[in-house]
Amino acid sequence: MAFNQLTPELVVAFEGVVGPANVLTAQRVETDVYADYGRDHTEDLEFAPDVVLRPGTAEEVAAIMGLCHAAGVPVTARGAGTGLSGGALPIHHGVVLSTERLNRILQIDERNLQATVEPGVINEVFQNAVKEVGLFYPPDPASKGSCTLGGNLAHSSGGPRAVKYGTTKDYVLNLQVALPTGELIWTAANTLKNSTGYNLTQLMVGSEGTLGIITKVVFRLLPYPQQNVLMLVPFRQEAQAAEAVSAVFRAGIIPSAMEFMEREAIAWSSNYLNIPLTLPEEIRAHLLIELDGQDLDQLYKEAEQVYAVLENYDVDEILLADTAAQKDDLWKIRRNIGNSVRYNSVYKEEDTVVPRAELPTLLKGVKEIGARYGFKSVCYGHAGDGNLHVNIIRGELTDEQWNVGLRQPISEIFELCVQLGGTISGEHGIGLVQKPYIGIALKEANLNLMRGIKAVFDPKGILNPGKIF
Amino acid sequence: MAFNQLTPELVVAFEGVVGPANVLTAQRVETDVYADYGRDHTEDLEFAPDVVLRPGTAEEVAAIMGLCHAAGVPVTARGAGTGLSGGALPIHHGVVLSTERLNRILQIDERNLQATVEPGVINEVFQNAVKEVGLFYPPDPASKGSCTLGGNLAHSSGGPRAVKYGTTKDYVLNLQVALPTGELIWTAANTLKNSTGYNLTQLMVGSEGTLGIITKVVFRLLPYPQQNVLMLVPFRQEAQAAEAVSAVFRAGIIPSAMEFMEREAIAWSSNYLNIPLTLPEEIRAHLLIELDGQDLDQLYKEAEQVYAVLENYDVDEILLADTAAQKDDLWKIRRNIGNSVRYNSVYKEEDTVVPRAELPTLLKGVKEIGARYGFKSVCYGHAGDGNLHVNIIRGELTDEQWNVGLRQPISEIFELCVQLGGTISGEHGIGLVQKPYIGIALKEANLNLMRGIKAVFDPKGILNPGKIF
Repeated sequence: MAFNQLTPELVVAFEGVVGPANVLTAQRVETDVYADYGRDHTEDLEFAPDVVLRPGTAEEVAAIMGLCHAAGVPVTARGAGTGLSGGALPIHHGVVLSTERLNRILQIDERNLQATVEPGVINEVFQNAVKEVGLFYPPDPASKGSCTLGGNLAHSSGGPRAVKYGTTKDYVLNLQVALPTGELIWTAANTLKNSTGYNLTQLMVGSEGTLGIITKVVFRLLPYPQQNVLMLVPFRQEAQAAEAVSAVFRAGIIPSAMEFMEREAIAWSSNYLNIPLTLPEEIRAHLLIELDGQDLDQLYKEAEQVYAVLENYDVDEILLADTAAQKDDLWKIRRNIGNSVRYNSVYKEEDTVVPRAELPTLLKGVKEIGARYGFKSVCYGHAGDGNLHVNIIRGELTDEQWNVGLRQPISEIFELCVQLGGTISGEHGIGLVQKPYIGIALKEANLNLMRGIKAVFDPKGILNPGKIF
Repeated sequence: MAFNQLTPELVVAFEGVVGPANVLTAQRVETDVYADYGRDHTEDLEFAPDVVLRPGTAEEVAAIMGLCHAAGVPVTARGAGTGLSGGALPIHHGVVLSTERLNRILQIDERNLQATVEPGVINEVFQNAVKEVGLFYPPDPASKGSCTLGGNLAHSSGGPRAVKYGTTKDYVLNLQVALPTGELIWTAANTLKNSTGYNLTQLMVGSEGTLGIITKVVFRLLPYPQQNVLMLVPFRQEAQAAEAVSAVFRAGIIPSAMEFMEREAIAWSSNYLNIPLTLPEEIRAHLLIELDGQDLDQLYKEAEQVYAVLENYDVDEILLADTAAQKDDLWKIRRNIGNSVRYNSVYKEEDTVVPRAELPTLLKGVKEIGARYGFKSVCYGHAGDGNLHVNIIRGELTDEQWNVGLRQPISEIFELCVQLGGTISGEHGIGLVQKPYIGIALKEANLNLMRGIKAVFDPKGILNPGKIF
């Protein structure tokens, strides 16, 4: 698809919409600051935008869209740039539309257990704000301290609590969206149920900024679960750690988190954080299991049931975290695996997902493929959801091996996922880097429907071009 | 839109696909039996199909679609015909595609807490089958004993348990769909999380048979909650019953059902069922509140908290159902309100939905509008979801009043819903009878997107024409 170049007239028009201070170009800001708008957390990729716009209202977003649509200039929306699939990279240059100024929590509606926010609000800021009034927003990606809710929506992000509470998609009731043509719509209503026409809300969620720009969000909330119990379970065999996950569910228990970490994942992260952790030689993997609710006695009862299930497996001594500080340390270790890997090496992160009970087979397959093609991987993830993050470490691989040689083994990993009833991304999205593999997960008929839908929303294809398919 | 007539050649072709025994015409079967395929549970509407087809496999459905697409003949999918918005009525005649033979539970996957079914399986049959292996499929429309899972998907159906467990849409992982062009696709993967392209699954859910025909479904399941507690709470003021709903949530409790019944709803239904019920003069409404879980002691603790909340309201003595028979009676009364109204009179059922805390305002508004326009209504519904079913009783209204005169007051009810942040259907769908009102809920820009999506899936518009928009 051919796009038009940014013109000086268009820059002037943008200044009219958002004010000159919010029109950033390579000439106007420091090189490092500007370059950041062309990167995210995906490998070491970088693409320079022609201009960065920082609108402050939904109406400004809509006006920018109208201008870009008329001019045929690409627009790539950007939250915090913590994405892991290259979704926010402006590969066709043009406009990067940053939501950094759209960062207001507009309303917390305690009567209805709902909140209305702008897309640039940081996930954790939102979680804390609703917690203050006794409410709970569960989705908590590892990057919750920096990622935005708009980015979470774009990729249908999950996090540890998804196993009990679902992902971002399960909390959104209604979206205000600026369409490429410059119109602002609300996709639905502020209701828990809706059977009024097609579900445009869920069509937007996970569409990675290719259909419209989210300008406001209405989320549903839950009562805050006041109590939790956290245990770290060391296994002598990786496969058993993965198997135990299903067994806990079949015992009637739904943990609020059930995280798998292979030995190297937990070792790298605790080293990186300088949090000491006893890690006997024979321990191959851990499960981090959290139970939550309103009643601590009840949680201890459930914890006993979990212990009873785990007795059937070859586990070492279980650590039951009993202080807030201890819990915090365990969660820090879990959340910083990605950072610790990044600190050690460039890596490619694959976001594989399969039905929960197929996780041992997937893990075994990943290691076999790695051994066959000569790469090392660090695996961890949301075992309760069957969602395994496979971090392929660059290590000593040559450029050729890294850029070309890995395509075949990555394809084989994804083919295994699909054979097991799974798919190629659970919560990171397809973006740029998984795009070459989309055909493994989806048939041409599916992709044609998606292309058709894209054309309905964005007839000129200006929104985040070159992504997904 | 102009459609082509059914030809004798097409009938022969259908016979080749499904066998002559599964090609029903007015000439081949009894009048009453045939006429049933042209009716559902919506008022007294009836439209005769030209032919009824009963395919037995997904491939047969796809072949039928291919033939109809080529011939330009309309196809209306039909489950059990329990719909309340006229969604299954073949208003442009042509083919009625009945899913009655697609009624197999193909697999219950206990390892993954999933099941694969055909769309013609009866909701309750499925619930019971998974319960036998300790699993739980929560969505339970009032018509669960007769409605099909395919119909539930078409309308994004809910039911009492939606307040805790969500609606049909929250349990579907993957759909096999026959597209109008004759292709079979799977929309997603059998995973709890999926961030791989647009969410075609949720686009199908609630699309009322206008985008494709669902031929197989993969549902996720939960561990079966072994215990429950049910209480019937009589209120002296309708508005207080609606207000108490929010208060229970704010106390940190998520009931598994929270049903509102105004006095007449419970009175009509208990009379209809011949289940005696003490109903003192001053009682204006009831809440039926269910708590569920794995631990009865825990539920009694929660019940005490609910009692504590209810002490702030003007309630009469609370009935705590303590036998299975008593619980069953209470649920029967709740589930048969619709039937009791239908038994007494022709009625129009409006499926209004608002944010939970706005229910008292909606109820008051409905009664005021009824008083102003001279009609009586029986109101009940899923108060925990803000979903109020308004049954407008025909009573002594003339044809003119019934068919034309009610349009204005119904519009006013829907406008009130939208003002309160709600919409015009929570779980019944738009179908035929709510179509004139869709513009109250959705802007032209939304409808244009939906029309565009429809054209991508169904370029000749043969699927369930004349519905939704």
